Order: sequence, then C-alpha cells, then structure tokens
Amino acid sequence: MSQPTAATVDPSSTARLEQLRRRVDAVLGEFIEDRAAAWPEPVLNLGFTTIRDFILRPGKRIRPIFCYWGWRGAGASAGDDDAILRAAAALELFHVSALVHDDLLDLSESRRGLPAVHRLLADVHARSSWRGDARRFGRNAALLTGNLCLLLADELLATSGLEPDRLRAAWPHYRDLRTEVMCGRLLEQGEQAAGNGVAAAMRVIHLKTTSYTVMRPLQIGAALAGADRRLIDLYGDLAVQIGEAFQLRDDYLDVFCEHRRTASGLDDIRNGKPTVLIALTRERSDRRQRSRIGAIHGNPSASEGAVEALRRIMIETGAKQSVEDMILERESRALDLLDAAPIEATAKRALRELILLACRDDA
Amino acid sequence: MSQPTAATVDPSSTARLEQLRRRVDAVLGEFIEDRAAAWPEPVLNLGFTTIRDFILRPGKRIRPIFCYWGWRGAGASAGDDDAILRAAAALELFHVSALVHDDLLDLSESRRGLPAVHRLLADVHARSSWRGDARRFGRNAALLTGNLCLLLADELLATSGLEPDRLRAAWPHYRDLRTEVMCGRLLEQGEQAAGNGVAAAMRVIHLKTTSYTVMRPLQIGAALAGADRRLIDLYGDLAVQIGEAFQLRDDYLDVFCEHRRTASGLDDIRNGKPTVLIALTRERSDRRQRSRIGAIHGNPSASEGAVEALRRIMIETGAKQSVEDMILERESRALDLLDAAPIEATAKRALRELILLACRDDA
Repeated sequence: MSQPTAATVDPSSTARLEQLRRRVDAVLGEFIEDRAAAWPEPVLNLGFTTIRDFILRPGKRIRPIFCYWGWRGAGASAGDDDAILRAAAALELFHVSALVHDDLLDLSESRRGLPAVHRLLADVHARSSWRGDARRFGRNAALLTGNLCLLLADELLATSGLEPDRLRAAWPHYRDLRTEVMCGRLLEQGEQAAGNGVAAAMRVIHLKTTSYTVMRPLQIGAALAGADRRLIDLYGDLAVQIGEAFQLRDDYLDVFCEHRRTASGLDDIRNGKPTVLIALTRERSDRRQRSRIGAIHGNPSASEGAVEALRRIMIETGAKQSVEDMILERESRALDLLDAAPIEATAKRALRELILLACRDDA
Repeated sequence: MSQPTAATVDPSSTARLEQLRRRVDAVLGEFIEDRAAAWPEPVLNLGFTTIRDFILRPGKRIRPIFCYWGWRGAGASAGDDDAILRAAAALELFHVSALVHDDLLDLSESRRGLPAVHRLLADVHARSSWRGDARRFGRNAALLTGNLCLLLADELLATSGLEPDRLRAAWPHYRDLRTEVMCGRLLEQGEQAAGNGVAAAMRVIHLKTTSYTVMRPLQIGAALAGADRRLIDLYGDLAVQIGEAFQLRDDYLDVFCEHRRTASGLDDIRNGKPTVLIALTRERSDRRQRSRIGAIHGNPSASEGAVEALRRIMIETGAKQSVEDMILERESRALDLLDAAPIEATAKRALRELILLACRDDA
C-alpha cells in the first residue's frame, strides 16, 4: 500500500510514546503485585503471576495512550498525571481480560509468538503432575483469570486517585467501552456463524475497534479531565475515522502482509473472520469466484495455495484497492477534524501522531 | 439429619420471601429487556433473551434477599425500597454470570434439570443450520454472554437510583464480593487439581459462600443504608456462621440427599469436589479406606456402587456425623449473635428466618 508524503510520522514521537508505555507498564506491574500479595495460595499466585507476565509483554498500549491524550487534549496539565496514568492503565488490564478470553474463543495456542494464557496454565498443571486433564485445567483457570483481570481493571480505575465526581462523569463512557466490545465480540461470533454483509462487518469494527480502542478511551480521558459535551462529541467523530481506518488496515495486513501472516498464530481467512475486505470481495465477485470464496473462507484446512487464490480474487474484484482507498479517506478526514478542533497545541500534535500511527503502523 | 425443635421456620415468612423474590424478578426482567432494546442484532437479541429466560428460572434469590435485609437491618425504611431492590437484583445478575461460566467449567449440559446456557445457544446454532461447530459456538457465546451479565450487574447497581455517596460506601464490599468469589472459584480449580486439605476446603467455602452469598450481600445492603462500621462488622461475624453452615449443608445434601443427587446434573463425588466432608473423611480413614477413596473421589466413571461405598466410609469414619454437628453449632452461634445485635425488630425477625432457611432448607 502506497504511503502519501504529505503527512509523516515524527521520529521523536516514538520515544515519547515509549516513555508513556513504560509508565503504564510500571503502574500495571506494581498494581498486580500489590493485589497478588492478598492471595498467597499457590494457584492464585500462579494466576496473578501469569497475568502480570502476560500484560507486561511488549505491546502498543494503544487504549491507555488514547485515554491519556484525550485527558491532555481536554486541557489537563502534564504536571500531575500519576492518577490519570493509573486510570489509563485500567483500560489495558480490561483489554488483557479480552485477550485471554479471545484465545479461548479462537482455540489459539499462542499470541504473538508466545504461549496463550490457557496454554501457560495447562503447562504448569502438566509439569506439576496434578490430577485431571491439564488442558481442561488450563482453559478453566484462564476463563477465571480473564474474569479476574476485568475485575482488577475496575479496581485500578476506582482507586486511581481521581476525584469521585470525575470518576462518575467517566463511568458512562467506561460502561459503554465494556458493553460495546462484549456485544461486538458476540456479534462477531454470530457473523462467523450466520452472516457476512459489509454493514455487519462495519458494525463489528465500530464496536470492537472504533468504540473500544479509540472513542471510549479518548472520551474517558476527556471526562476524567472534566471536559464538556462538545469535546466528548468531537472525540467521537474523530474516533470514527481513526477506528475504522485502524481496523480496515489491521484486517488488510492480516491478509496481505507476509510478516504478519507468519507471525500471527491466527489466520483470518481460514478462521472465516467477517471483515469488510472479505464482504466487499463477496459482493463484487461473479458466481465462479463466489463459489471459490465459499470453499476457502472459513475453511480451517484450506491450503496455502487456496488462500493465495482468495487473495487474487480480492485484487481482481478491486476489493483490495477499495479498502486501501477507504483507509486513506478516513485518515484524511481525521486529520482535517483534528486541525479544526479547539485542542491545546501539544496534545493536538500528539493526537496527530496517533492518527498516523493508527492508520499506518505495521506492527 | 435430625431437626431440633427449639427453633422453627415461620410459615408466613415463606410468603414474604416469595413476594421479595417476585419483586427482584420484576426488576431483572424489566432491566434486561430495556438493555436488550439497544441491541437489535439477532445474535445479541438471542444473548439477551437467553439471559432473561435463564435468570427468571425459579431460584432462591438468596443474595438479593440478604442484601435487602442487610439494608433494612441498618434501619432503612421499607416505604421507599425500589432503589435498593434494583441494587439487590444486581447481585443476582452477577450470580448468573458465575452460573453460566460454572457450567462451562464443569462441562455441565444442564442446570437444575434445564439446559445450561451454552447448550441453549448451541441448540439455536444447530436449529438455524449456521456455519461451523454448534457446540463451539455455544461455548463461545456463553462465555461472552456470561461476561455481559457481569457488566450488566454493574450497570444495574450504578443506575439503581441510590445516592452516589451511598454507592461509593458500598463499592469496596461489592468489589470484595466479586474478587473473592472469582479467587474462590480459581482456588477450587486448584484444589481439584492439586490438594484436598480441610483448611483449603474451608477457605473455598469462605470465599464462595460465606463471603459471596451472605457476608458481602449483607454488608452491601448495610453500606447502601449508610450503616456504620460496627454493624458492618457484626454482619461479618454473623455471615461466617451462616455461610459455613449453608455450604456444609449444601455439600452434605449433594452427597446424602437422594432427591438432590438425581435432580442435579452434577455429582460432587465423581467431579472430585473438594468439600469439608470429603477432607474429614480422608483425614479419619485408615489405609484401606484411603485407597478406596482415592479410586472413587474425582473418578468420572466411578460406579453407583462405588459412590455408595464412599458414602459408607463417610459414615464409618464419623465424618458425616461431624459435619452434621458443625452445621448445628454454626446455626446456634448465628442465632445467638443475632439475638444480641442492636437491629430493628422486623429486620431481626426476617434475618432469623433467613438463618434457619440457610441452615435447613433442602431446596
């Protein structure tokens, strides 16, 4: 996919982001160890240690970062940001809950090249020669450990140190973040089983990415800074563009980026993931192509050659090009919205970098 | 087990409890339908409908009832109790989340003679001739639906209509209710796999029953009524006695009550559930008995005859009698504590009935 030259990522922003990530990680590590201290029983200690090691694996921390800059964009001062970092880190802890459960849903043994949580827990069972089936123990303990992450996220947010009235203002956005992503994931299960329209795929994107990854984190940050309705709504509009671009690109890369395809334990095509890319491909395919798509997409034993053939159909139908255009359109609209927004200059620069990262980063 | 005649259940209390249950159910049905209206997509509608039908199956609503009477016991007036009923109903919604997930953990196809949620969802998949594996869809959708119940519980509590400062006072107790039961269930998984001491079994009882079913519901109710530390602590002491008696009796009936054993889809002996009854039996058994116990307890294919043999060992070792004594001791201590407590008379009478129900009810 070609990169336009008009807007580029500032290399120094990478260092600033990295510093923010390190501070979020420090909060998370310390909080989980503190909570773990209340539960000395070996299996609970195992649960907490597994969460801590899993959460501290390298990652983008994109939700805490949007939350932090949503807060700064509302005019909050960088001088006193320990509490907002704790609140922002809560979003990562909630996200870990979703990742742990998603690996159960997908029967995925690994995540980004390292073992999934249910696999780690099963391995401990096997190594310790415990009674019963190690895999079943791993799955059961992972389900509960995932729930525990969700509860700990609430606790980290509630004890972040922010004022009660600010927390209360942010609560509806936090509630929406949680409910929307849960419904989005359930909808995705339904789509995999029963549907495949562009509209439904866009709805899943809205719930799982736009809202969950960008909109609600920005709005939670803004509400925690005491922002008014106008900024909350503006963040909403901005997030629609960023979130859609991000997810369109993410699904695109999962199919067309060689590095991604081999690094990921998952395979969107074989798993039948309902993406806009596949929905557009279906809509524009002729009868012969449609029947090939039906045989390949969602077929766990589709050969590499068959998957490559589906990629060719995506190119032939113009679906690949359309998705590229959709991403660029959204990036450009997001940058225009941000330019016109009444947001403090440092925060505006940082949000601009985040837009470019979300729409272009290949990681 | 013999019933002492000194303290008996007032028959009219059953009608009062039934009325409270009906009001809790009305709150739950209305709330879920209201939330469902925001999610018209078929699979989400399926999720919400399944939750609603599942939650409205007949049940004791024991946590909402303890919460309600904890509130009344703190001096709150019955005249204005719509908000507390919503808050109390949230505990039932949280509990549904635990039940849905527990049926996944136990691979249980049914709950009290009706299909488990993952089974209901799998059946819809199969009937609708959707793509993919119906059982896997059922399990995945049930995991997410269970999470959704947990989130909805928070929402029902937060929007109950109670004052923000009262909600804030109750939050630590609600947080403890959730974290303790989650850790208790994880500990139980660990106990099934690795241990079996009386101390560990009592700890699981404390977390899964004493705290989750009695102590935190009473304390949440009290905090929502603005109670002081003294009553919160008194409820804590009372709950230890009630909760332990309740769980000891529950585990006892699962093994010795003929009706229970056939009605329940589960079998504690074959599942290897770490109860005080089995831990005491192990501790008091000789070498020959211990080896028989090892072959039967936790053996999913143990014959009915083998299970009956284990029951005989429970009688021979005196473990059965000891558990009966432990239950009566706790009931009596709970009644003494309540008698001496500075609690309003109507609430005291109701709490007394609840103690007797918890220690004696066979349902």
